[in-house]
Formats: sequence, structure tokens, C-alpha cells
Amino acid sequence: MLGLLRTGLPVLRAAAGPQLQARSSQHDASAHARLLLSQLFQPLNLQVGGVAGCEGQAAELGCRSHRLMLQGGLIHPASPGCYHLLPPAVRSMEKLIRLIDGAMRNIGGQKVNMPSLSSAELWRTSGRWEQMGPELFRLADRHGKEYCLGPTHEEAVTELVAAHSNLSYRQLPLRLYQVTRKFRDEPKPRFGLLRSREFYMKDMYTFDASEEAARHTYELVCTAYRSLFKRLGLRCVQVRAATGTIGGTASHEFQLPADIGEDRLVLCPAGHFAANVEMVDEKQTACPACGEKLTQSRGIEVGHTFYLGTKYSSVHNAAFYTPENKLQLAEMGCYGLGVTRILAASIEVLSTEDSIRWPSLIAPYQVCFIPPKKGSREERGAALLERLYDDVAEALPRLAGDVVLDDRTQMTIGKRLKDANKLGYPYVVVAGRRVCEDPPVFEVWDQSSGTVLYLTKEGVIELLSKVQLP
Amino acid sequence: MLGLLRTGLPVLRAAAGPQLQARSSQHDASAHARLLLSQLFQPLNLQVGGVAGCEGQAAELGCRSHRLMLQGGLIHPASPGCYHLLPPAVRSMEKLIRLIDGAMRNIGGQKVNMPSLSSAELWRTSGRWEQMGPELFRLADRHGKEYCLGPTHEEAVTELVAAHSNLSYRQLPLRLYQVTRKFRDEPKPRFGLLRSREFYMKDMYTFDASEEAARHTYELVCTAYRSLFKRLGLRCVQVRAATGTIGGTASHEFQLPADIGEDRLVLCPAGHFAANVEMVDEKQTACPACGEKLTQSRGIEVGHTFYLGTKYSSVHNAAFYTPENKLQLAEMGCYGLGVTRILAASIEVLSTEDSIRWPSLIAPYQVCFIPPKKGSREERGAALLERLYDDVAEALPRLAGDVVLDDRTQMTIGKRLKDANKLGYPYVVVAGRRVCEDPPVFEVWDQSSGTVLYLTKEGVIELLSKVQLP
Repeated sequence: MLGLLRTGLPVLRAAAGPQLQARSSQHDASAHARLLLSQLFQPLNLQVGGVAGCEGQAAELGCRSHRLMLQGGLIHPASPGCYHLLPPAVRSMEKLIRLIDGAMRNIGGQKVNMPSLSSAELWRTSGRWEQMGPELFRLADRHGKEYCLGPTHEEAVTELVAAHSNLSYRQLPLRLYQVTRKFRDEPKPRFGLLRSREFYMKDMYTFDASEEAARHTYELVCTAYRSLFKRLGLRCVQVRAATGTIGGTASHEFQLPADIGEDRLVLCPAGHFAANVEMVDEKQTACPACGEKLTQSRGIEVGHTFYLGTKYSSVHNAAFYTPENKLQLAEMGCYGLGVTRILAASIEVLSTEDSIRWPSLIAPYQVCFIPPKKGSREERGAALLERLYDDVAEALPRLAGDVVLDDRTQMTIGKRLKDANKLGYPYVVVAGRRVCEDPPVFEVWDQSSGTVLYLTKEGVIELLSKVQLP
Repeated sequence: MLGLLRTGLPVLRAAAGPQLQARSSQHDASAHARLLLSQLFQPLNLQVGGVAGCEGQAAELGCRSHRLMLQGGLIHPASPGCYHLLPPAVRSMEKLIRLIDGAMRNIGGQKVNMPSLSSAELWRTSGRWEQMGPELFRLADRHGKEYCLGPTHEEAVTELVAAHSNLSYRQLPLRLYQVTRKFRDEPKPRFGLLRSREFYMKDMYTFDASEEAARHTYELVCTAYRSLFKRLGLRCVQVRAATGTIGGTASHEFQLPADIGEDRLVLCPAGHFAANVEMVDEKQTACPACGEKLTQSRGIEVGHTFYLGTKYSSVHNAAFYTPENKLQLAEMGCYGLGVTRILAASIEVLSTEDSIRWPSLIAPYQVCFIPPKKGSREERGAALLERLYDDVAEALPRLAGDVVLDDRTQMTIGKRLKDANKLGYPYVVVAGRRVCEDPPVFEVWDQSSGTVLYLTKEGVIELLSKVQLP
């Protein structure tokens, strides 16, 4: 195929597209394209210390996930605290968003999409135009009208619901959420996607008819958050937290324990108490529930819930008609999940110093196929491995897009296996020595358990049929 | 269930969530929730002239799609040229994005995600910081560093590819795209999502090894655009266009002919010539190809393609290694699709004065079920229709989320059928008089053909099994 380009027929090559290699087999009816690693836009800098475009930043890469995401071609810096998400990171984020969408749908969430440009008037009404200080990105339009770039949307959503002038108690609870870009002018953006100035967040806003109903909604969302992190295989601690500029009367953070976390947590080892240190009297050293000695830990905040009461509904007049046909203010809650931050935090807590590990559900690609090196003794295994790739793609169409063929056959299997280990594909399928047996036997590396299985084609397909996707 | 709320058990109701009505049938294993129209956040103002929150704007609603989208609870104004997308609009947009993703994948597109905050330096390098004038939203961060909110990303993507310092001809063509929010400070935002200040756009940027290869990529993307609009059932004209501030040497617009369109097009009735009027000499009245008299039409621009050559790659030094190992500038193209604009433009060209019509593939919901009015002669048909709803959901799980039950049974079937017609569900299933026959017969309205079919349960399921989803 490369020959074509050299002999002046670039058109034929261009027609196939970058990562498309047409199958030359007889399966034309179900023809599909192979995903070739060499064609993916994922600039790899997997040598220790090598991070393209960040040579000057070495000192700032004090955080494992930031370094691994740069080395693995997942992100690329654009400006301080702003990153390009490269194709594998986009795939991972879209998988995470699908999981979150499912979790929100399960608790009756309805998805909306609110603008980033948020008028100053709106924020002045709630008093937060001043209160937020330099964290708000502010701008004026061509007519001099002031806006901020929404870091959160309590004002906007409350006004939206308030505009629904004949809202009835029958329509409550109302649980609106969105997954959009948010903006925060961090004084010191750092750690890549862990503390950036532009990021994706899932924010839900709930409206209930009574405090009791709102407290129930609050519990429901917290439970959904806990099961989401459980599905991701992430150990998450729900701690009591301060309400900050969002306000309200109760709040919890969802924290992934990690040394580089910016929050300090106070935990009861028996699990009876967990709080952000800001909520605890310094003198308190014993768990108020069981008396056990409290321990400290650091954590990365990946979610935050607030019971708001009528703080915003009273300002914007978000009211509903009661069964007695009287207007009453809605009881509100708001609930955030840091989408891009969860990607980085997962890598931070699951990876080793030099190898990325993903929650397997949201790994960008589930399987990597490694054919033998060109010119090696097993070279004739290449066709068998490619055939296996095609058979897997045909037998398991839902994995389409999730199986990569590492076609860098100028490299040894060992070197590519090392790269695959660093990139963290949940499964790696290798055409090693036993590929020449009859029937051919393939090596399958299960990265989560670190085990190797020797399987025939049927065995590989059966194993991969159990791969879960969101 | 409402009774529970009144007797002081709001918790039970809250547990079910807003749009969830647990099935009381014996199908618990596959239990799912019904989507109740009364619980959807879609504030309807379907009476002629009634648009909540826009009383003062009547004069500006000179455009059908804008009015219909407000009346149908699809969008709600936030600030001039900025709209909240309400749940049905989000569903429709996500379907459209799935279609676009598929079309881009088919031509080897790899999805990235670039920040909205784009540094002034970057735009000064290309000269567009000055050139774009007041259309750029500009702001400074807390350190006084200047940014704009990206209306398009030629500079950003070219710098990203340029940072890939060992890019080889083997990796070309490279076709990167994203679907993100864009910002443009329109002097006069109007017509709702047709000309807004914050909008979703799909933008692809391509990098090729030669002009010939780049021209082929250009054709490939244009063909993908044409088939996308064909799949949507939209008549789209590809016209020659000016390159404007984007630059480059060739450009086409994809236009949906419509009276309210802001572009004027010159067309050959036999299809041999099509151009934006800005490209044609006023004196030219005959088609240059066939001599036929040219006609004029108005159009809504929904896509735009540019052949850029090396305009940006030369500025940012986006180069690749040739087979001879020499560095050479990449030949670029850029390609936009107005995502939110396509939603509005589709409604504009397909709808009647008072009834929304969607490209059926991207209708927010595919089917609406209307049970009989409470207290009517056919009331016992309600259980049969609900059973049918559940059977459809069970037999066709991929339609989950696409079938709505209009539970406003205080209203007559006729009134709800009228609403359903205005909202434009592709199919409406009614429990009318013949629901009492044995076996029950349901009325199925096919909105695209305007026909009514009388079908048994099996017939309804068979008909709906043919519904296409992206």
C-alpha cells in the first residue's frame, strides 16, 4: 500500500483513509476496516522522561497521571490549564459520559444543555458576581454587555425552571443535568486534567416539593455516585464537606484517596466517619461514632453534592403549584462530577510509575493485537493474527473501534508488548512461538491480573466476548 | 401514585424519579420505566402565539423554526443569541452527532477535543487576531493574558500537528475532527439556533502529503456531507463559495434552500452550476456549462468546506517527513458542519406553519402512545395501550427512550393527537374505538405519509421494528 504512494497513486491510498486498511479476504460482505496503531493520532513518548512539547515543564510534571497522559499521547498542552484531548482520551471520555448518562437516567435525570456564556445580571442577582472573585472568567460582548464563562449553573438552571410559570407539584421531582465544558480561572492550574482551567463536568440540579423529598433526592444521587465509582473499580470515599461559594446547608465530597490529592481527609478506620479536614475541629482525634482513632489521608475530589434548600429558588423565584394550588418555592440540590478529572484521577490511582492502568470499562481501546516482527521466524504468524483480528471483529461487532492492530512490525514483539503494557490495554493478543502450532495458539495477556493465557481462536473469541463496554 | 404524595409519602414517589413509572406487570425480569409526557421537561406552548418567556419578542420570531422550537419546548432563551437546549433538543442533537461521528469515521476521521480558550498569541501568529474584528469574543485571564473563545480552530489544530515533530508521510492523510461549542459575537443574532452566538459545530481539519492527495480528501469530505444530508432526507445544494477570513483557494457551501436563508444562491436548473451569488458576476445570467438560464434562490448554510493549501501549515510549520526523509509542509483542508444549525434548519425546511417535522432519523422521540381519555367509553383500552407500550419496549429494546406515553388523560384523544402532530413524532399510536375489538386494533398514524393504519399488537411491533435509529 505504501508502494502505491511512492508510485504516484496517492489517491488510492487516500481513499482508504488514515486508519483504514481494507480487508483483502473473502469476507467482503461484512468488510470492515482495521484500526492500525501506526495511523492513530496518538504521539507516543514512552521513553522515560520524553514528553514532546513539554521539555520546559519537567519540574511541573510532579504528578504521575499528568506525565503518563502526556507520554501516552492522551493529551497535549494548549495553554496554561487548557489541554487538547487526543483521540484515545476522547474515546475514554465518551465512554465515561455514556456511563454517567445511564446512571443519571436511572434516577430520572433529564439531559439539558445550557450556554457557557452567562450574563453578569444573572450572577449579580445571586450575589456571586462579586463573591466568585478572580475565579470567574469575565468578558464583555461587542455591545459592552458583561458575561462570565459558567463554572457552574445554579443561577441559569433556576431561572430556566422559574420561567416554567405553571409548574405543578405533579412534575416534581425535576432532575435536570448536563455534561458540558466549564471554566474556572484557577490561580495555579496544575497536574494536567486534575486542576485545569477548562474542563468537562456533569452537573445535575434537582427541584423537589418538600425538604423531605429533596433529602431523598440527595441520598439517591449520592447512591448513584457511589455505584458509578464502584462500577469503575475505584475506591471512593464520601466525606462531609463545606459548602463554599455554592452555598446550602449540607454537602459531601467524593474523594479518591491519593498522595497528590489537594484535599486532606479525616477518616474513621472502621468507616463510621469521613470528613474533609476543614469540617473537623483540630482537637478531634477520635471518631464521634465509635471512638476509634481518626486517621488522615489525602484525596482527589471527583464529585461534590450540595443540599441547597431554597437559596437559589428564592432569589430567582422558582416555584411550583401545590395540591392546594398555592405557589411554593422548590427545594433544590446540585451535584457535580468532574468528568475530565475522573479520567486523570483514575490513571493517578490505578497506574504504576510507568504504566497506565484504566478502569477497564473506560479504557480507550479494549484489545491490542501484536503480530510477529517482520523477518522473524514466526513471520508467517502475521497472517494468522490478522485473520484472528478480523474474526474477532466479525464475531463481536460491539468491539468494533475497540481493537487495535499494532502494525509497527519493524519492532520486536517484546518492545511492542512493553508499549502495550505502558498504554494499559486491558487485553493484549500476541502471535508468539506457538502460533505455528496446528491449530495456532495465541498468547493473551490479561493486564488486570497480569496473567497470560494460551488460547486457540475460539478461546480468544470466548474470552473477549465477556469484555464489558458502557 | 399521586395519591401517595398527598398522603405524606413523597419518598416513595421520589424514588421512582420524574419520568419513571414502574411497571406493575409480571415482566419484572425485564422491568423498565415508562416515559411519561407529563413528566418530561418540555414546557409546551402549543397554542398559536403562545411562547413563554418571549412575549416581548413576537416581532423577532419572523422565522418558523425559531417559533416552533420555542413553542414545542425544545429551546429556551438564555441571553441574546444563546439558548438552553431542553431535553428533546439534546436527544435530537445527540442523534445527529452519532450520525456525524459515523460519517467521519467512515472517511478515517479521528475525534479530538480542543479547548474553547484560545490564546491571542496563536491568533496573532496567523494574523486573524486583528482580521476577525468584533466577531471574536475576547477576554483576559487573571494574569492579563489575552484569549479568544474559539469560533474555529485552524490555528490550534495546526499547532497541535506541528508539535508532532516526527510526523511521517506514512501517517498521512491525517483527518482530525471535533464536535464542540463555538462562539461568535454576531452583530445581530437572530432566528434562534440559525444564527446564534454560541453553537455546536463539527469541524474537521485534514493534513495531506500532496496537493493531489489533499484535493482527493476534499472530494471525500464533500461526498460524505452530501450523503449525510441525503440520509437526513434534506435537499442540500453544494455551491461554490468565497473563502472569507478562513482563507485558502477553494471553498464550497452546503445550502438548504429556504426563503428565510441569509445566503443568495445562483443555480442552474439542470444542476450544472451552483454558486453563492458573491461568486458570480452580476451580468452572468446563463449557466457557463449548458447555457440554461440561471435561477436565484435563498439558502441556509449548514456546511462549509475549504481547501487551505499551506496557508496555516506554513505559519505554524506543520510539516512531515517525505519518503526521501525531507521535511515538507502539509496540505490542509477544513470542513465545518453547523450541528445546532442543522437542527433548526431541518425544522425550518420540513415543517408546516404550526407543525414540526423532523428528519425522522433525528426526531427526539420516535413514537407517541395516546391512551383514551379518562372516563370515556374506551377507557378500558388504557390498560391495553399501556400493555402494548410495554410489549413494544420489550420486543424492541433499542427503541427504549424513544417511546413516549402521553398520560395527560384528562384531555381528549383528539386534542393530544393534535399536540402530537405539532411536535412531529414520526409515529403516533392511539387506542381509539377499535381497541375494544378482539383482538384489539390500534390506530397508527404515520406522520411522514399522513396515513393511518389499523393494526393489532403484532402489526404495531412489526411496523416499529423498521424504525431506523442512528
